[in-house]
Amino acid sequence: MQIRKANVLEVRVLSDIMKRSLGAKTLLFPTPVMVVGTFDMDGKPNVMTAAWGGICCSDPPSLAVSIRRSRLTYQNLVAKGDFTVSIPSERYVAEVDYFGIAGGRNEDKFHGSGLTAAKAEHVDAPFVKEFPMHLECRVRHMLDLGQHTQFIGEIMDVKVDSDLVDDGIIDVARLQPFWYAPGTSEYFGTGENLGRGFTIGKKLSKK
Amino acid sequence: MQIRKANVLEVRVLSDIMKRSLGAKTLLFPTPVMVVGTFDMDGKPNVMTAAWGGICCSDPPSLAVSIRRSRLTYQNLVAKGDFTVSIPSERYVAEVDYFGIAGGRNEDKFHGSGLTAAKAEHVDAPFVKEFPMHLECRVRHMLDLGQHTQFIGEIMDVKVDSDLVDDGIIDVARLQPFWYAPGTSEYFGTGENLGRGFTIGKKLSKK
Repeated sequence: MQIRKANVLEVRVLSDIMKRSLGAKTLLFPTPVMVVGTFDMDGKPNVMTAAWGGICCSDPPSLAVSIRRSRLTYQNLVAKGDFTVSIPSERYVAEVDYFGIAGGRNEDKFHGSGLTAAKAEHVDAPFVKEFPMHLECRVRHMLDLGQHTQFIGEIMDVKVDSDLVDDGIIDVARLQPFWYAPGTSEYFGTGENLGRGFTIGKKLSKK
Repeated sequence: MQIRKANVLEVRVLSDIMKRSLGAKTLLFPTPVMVVGTFDMDGKPNVMTAAWGGICCSDPPSLAVSIRRSRLTYQNLVAKGDFTVSIPSERYVAEVDYFGIAGGRNEDKFHGSGLTAAKAEHVDAPFVKEFPMHLECRVRHMLDLGQHTQFIGEIMDVKVDSDLVDDGIIDVARLQPFWYAPGTSEYFGTGENLGRGFTIGKKLSKK
C-alpha cells in the first residue's frame, strides 16, 4: 500500500513537464486497415476502407466496424447484414486509399481499382480476391454511437492465401499487413518482429 | 452491370486454387496494444494489456475495448467508469506482455514492472508515465457480447510526450508504437511510411 501511494504522481506536475494535451481526439496507433465488402440489393459489389474497429469478442468470434450513415456500406449492411473484411498487403496501399476516398454510389470501385470481387463462401458479400486474407462476417449487433454506427459481426470464417499458411499458422511477416495512423493520416508497414506474446513478459511475473 | 457480373467469381473456384479456410477465428492484422489503466475502489492502480478494441466513433470521439468478466479491470470499469489507454513504444514490449500475463488481484503490476502510475487529469484513472501517449476515457456504453464485454469510452483528452509533438502533429515514427498479431501472438514494430491517406489513392479516383 505504501508502494502504491508513492507511485501515484500528480498529473499536474507531469503535464507541466513533459506531457502535452492534444484535446479530445480519435488518436490511436495502430488502427487497422479494413476493406469492408458488401452487396447492394441488386447484387452489385462495393468496398470501402474503414479504420474504426477491431476484434471485440473471442467467443463468439466477433469483429466491430463503425460506418457513417451516409455511406453506401451502411445502407448495404442494414439491408443485408452480411459483410467481409479484406486485409490488404502493403503493395495495395494506393487501391486501399482509393476505396476510402471514392463513394460507391458514384463509381464502381472494383472497376476503378482493377481489382476483382469474389463472393464469400459463408456470407452473401464480396471480398477482394487479390488481397491475401479476408474475414466472412454476419451482423449481430448495431449500435448508434453518434457520427458513426458500430456494426458487430460474428466471424463465420477466415480465409488466407494458401502459400502464406503452413500447418494452420499464418506467416504474418510475408502477408505484409499495414496500418493507419489517424491525425497525420499516414499508412505504415509492418516492422520488426519484437517477440512472442505470453512469453517475453514472463520474466517480470512473480510466478 | 456487365462489368460487375464478370467481376464476381465463384468462391468455390478460388478456394480450391488459392484460399485456405482457417475457420471462425479472431484473426485480424494489426490489432492494437492498449494498456488499460483503472483504479479499484480503494484507489489502487492497475493496468492490463488488451488487443480487442479500437476507435469506434469520431463524434463524440470514442474508443472501444473488450474485457473478460473475470478480470480486475472489468470490476474496476463497472465500479468507476473511468479508464485510460496508454500506448507503449517498442522498448516496452516485455513490460506490456507482462501486463497481459499477470493478474491485478495477485500482484502489483506497476511494482513488478518498475513503471510508474500517474493520475490522469480528466478522469479518475491511472496511466503509465513512461509510455509516450495516453487517452483519458469515460465509459458511455457497456455491451455483453459473450466471452468479452465491450466498454465504449468517450475520449476526454489525449496526451503525448512534448518532444514527440510539433505544431500539434505527432511524430508517429519516433513514437514507435507496436502491434499484436493474434494466432501466433507475435508483436510487430512500426515499418516503413507507405504514404499519406486521402492522397495516394486519388490517382485512381474518377474525380
